[in-house]
Amino acid sequence: MFGVTILGNNSALPVYERHPTAQIVTLNDQLLLIDCGEGTQIQLSRYRVRRSKINHILISHLHGDHYFGLIGLITSFGLMNREADLHLHAPEPLKQILDLQFAAADTRLPFTLHFHPLKEAGVIIDEDKFSVECFNVFHRIQCWGFVIREKKKPRRIDKEKIQLYNIPTTFYENLKDGEDYITSAGEIITNENVTKANTPARSYAFCSDTIYNEILADSVREANLLYHETTYLRDLEDRAASRFHCTTDQAANIALLANVKKMIIGHFSSKYEKLDDFLSETKEVFANTELAVEGVTFIV
Amino acid sequence: MFGVTILGNNSALPVYERHPTAQIVTLNDQLLLIDCGEGTQIQLSRYRVRRSKINHILISHLHGDHYFGLIGLITSFGLMNREADLHLHAPEPLKQILDLQFAAADTRLPFTLHFHPLKEAGVIIDEDKFSVECFNVFHRIQCWGFVIREKKKPRRIDKEKIQLYNIPTTFYENLKDGEDYITSAGEIITNENVTKANTPARSYAFCSDTIYNEILADSVREANLLYHETTYLRDLEDRAASRFHCTTDQAANIALLANVKKMIIGHFSSKYEKLDDFLSETKEVFANTELAVEGVTFIV
Repeated sequence: MFGVTILGNNSALPVYERHPTAQIVTLNDQLLLIDCGEGTQIQLSRYRVRRSKINHILISHLHGDHYFGLIGLITSFGLMNREADLHLHAPEPLKQILDLQFAAADTRLPFTLHFHPLKEAGVIIDEDKFSVECFNVFHRIQCWGFVIREKKKPRRIDKEKIQLYNIPTTFYENLKDGEDYITSAGEIITNENVTKANTPARSYAFCSDTIYNEILADSVREANLLYHETTYLRDLEDRAASRFHCTTDQAANIALLANVKKMIIGHFSSKYEKLDDFLSETKEVFANTELAVEGVTFIV
Repeated sequence: MFGVTILGNNSALPVYERHPTAQIVTLNDQLLLIDCGEGTQIQLSRYRVRRSKINHILISHLHGDHYFGLIGLITSFGLMNREADLHLHAPEPLKQILDLQFAAADTRLPFTLHFHPLKEAGVIIDEDKFSVECFNVFHRIQCWGFVIREKKKPRRIDKEKIQLYNIPTTFYENLKDGEDYITSAGEIITNENVTKANTPARSYAFCSDTIYNEILADSVREANLLYHETTYLRDLEDRAASRFHCTTDQAANIALLANVKKMIIGHFSSKYEKLDDFLSETKEVFANTELAVEGVTFIV
């Protein structure tokens, strides 16, 4: 399972039962939280997310609709006697903000909170089964996008073909890693002969608040699933630019240029009650688009 | 109209659709917000509170369930182009916490935010029609209670009796203030003779997170309405004390000692799903008690 569950899809003001940005990325039994607007801990309960499984939190930037729920979530982790380490990847000023609030409340967390400041584009998490890279997006203040990639998957043993050779089962793991087998007689049995390629490793790209910039297509290239903000409809391109945001058309252009497989859109301006036009406008340019509806899980 | 609308009645963890502490005090056309737990701005929308009428915000202490919603509310005031001054009365460390968050987001508020640190017990707001005093309560960190008092009301002209005397209407305001009238002949017409007492000035006392301490009865004496925390039922008196909180019995004792007219109770521990026992236990000791149910307005 590699999926993305939307907890909030609105921009700055919470309205129409839409909430500020927060998403859960599920990678088998690991959860990552991307952004954490006010009320995220309530959204986690509403959608029955197992919050104890969250080991990494990524914060794109320090506008409130992307992080005001973080201090509450971390405090609640403490009240719920969490013991596992928690890794927070965020712009540097957040550390002092959190520390001041812990000090004011005389809070002592029962777990270790590791703060990893986001400083330059590149790999920020490198685990056995996945990695996370951050990249620069272009907003009014320092802001980051993220790509979560499955690690390259092992090759699969071809059960029919392997029976033709006398390869010890202890070598099977080496075969999955792509090695050839050399018999005691020196004969080479090529890897391709006894294994098959697995499904390709997938990636999810999260493109947070940003002005339109085609450079982003490089950062999210070939993603299986792209989240891109669409704060405004296409007729408000000037307003979008002046506020360092994007329109439907602009997000769709990035999706096209980057050759992603599918896109979800969100961060809708509070001025729009209905979202239908966001979907129709975007699909005119990039057909495989869906609205990032809260509570829905999109498979990567 | 002098009333208290409950926006949140739960302690630390938001559960069972109960929210952290926040209350709106309505004094005719003025609104005061007491405490501002996470999600308060959503509760304000849910209960259709006219947030533009809030001119004063009082924060009892810096545990997160009493103020984590404040930065979001203030930021939203800015996004909604508020122009009126806003007065914030809170423990001193909050100023730096807010300032850091404004700086990180490059936020420039379009209105003036006046920060008034709570330093000693006494009057903190003195307006034409009401005053607010703060008093010390006894919690793990510095914590304040508040009493909101109507100003003493003017006397009412007795329309029948005043016709017996030739008092100029220009003197009526003096009569309402309690003055006697002296005729040109030197005759004294006593104020009591031509006016009636108005309804007495009312008061609302908010007793935030505190361990049981009978001193509090002095601070909230004779209040028309008292809010007192009851984090635990009576069987958990030891736990209440160890966490600087109160039980049902203890809150009821304060209400009795202080001779208040009515009490509402809240700040229920997240361990309790049902609240019936809070009400029955408290009423056994102090009968005129109600649960501080969210969305309900209690008339002072």
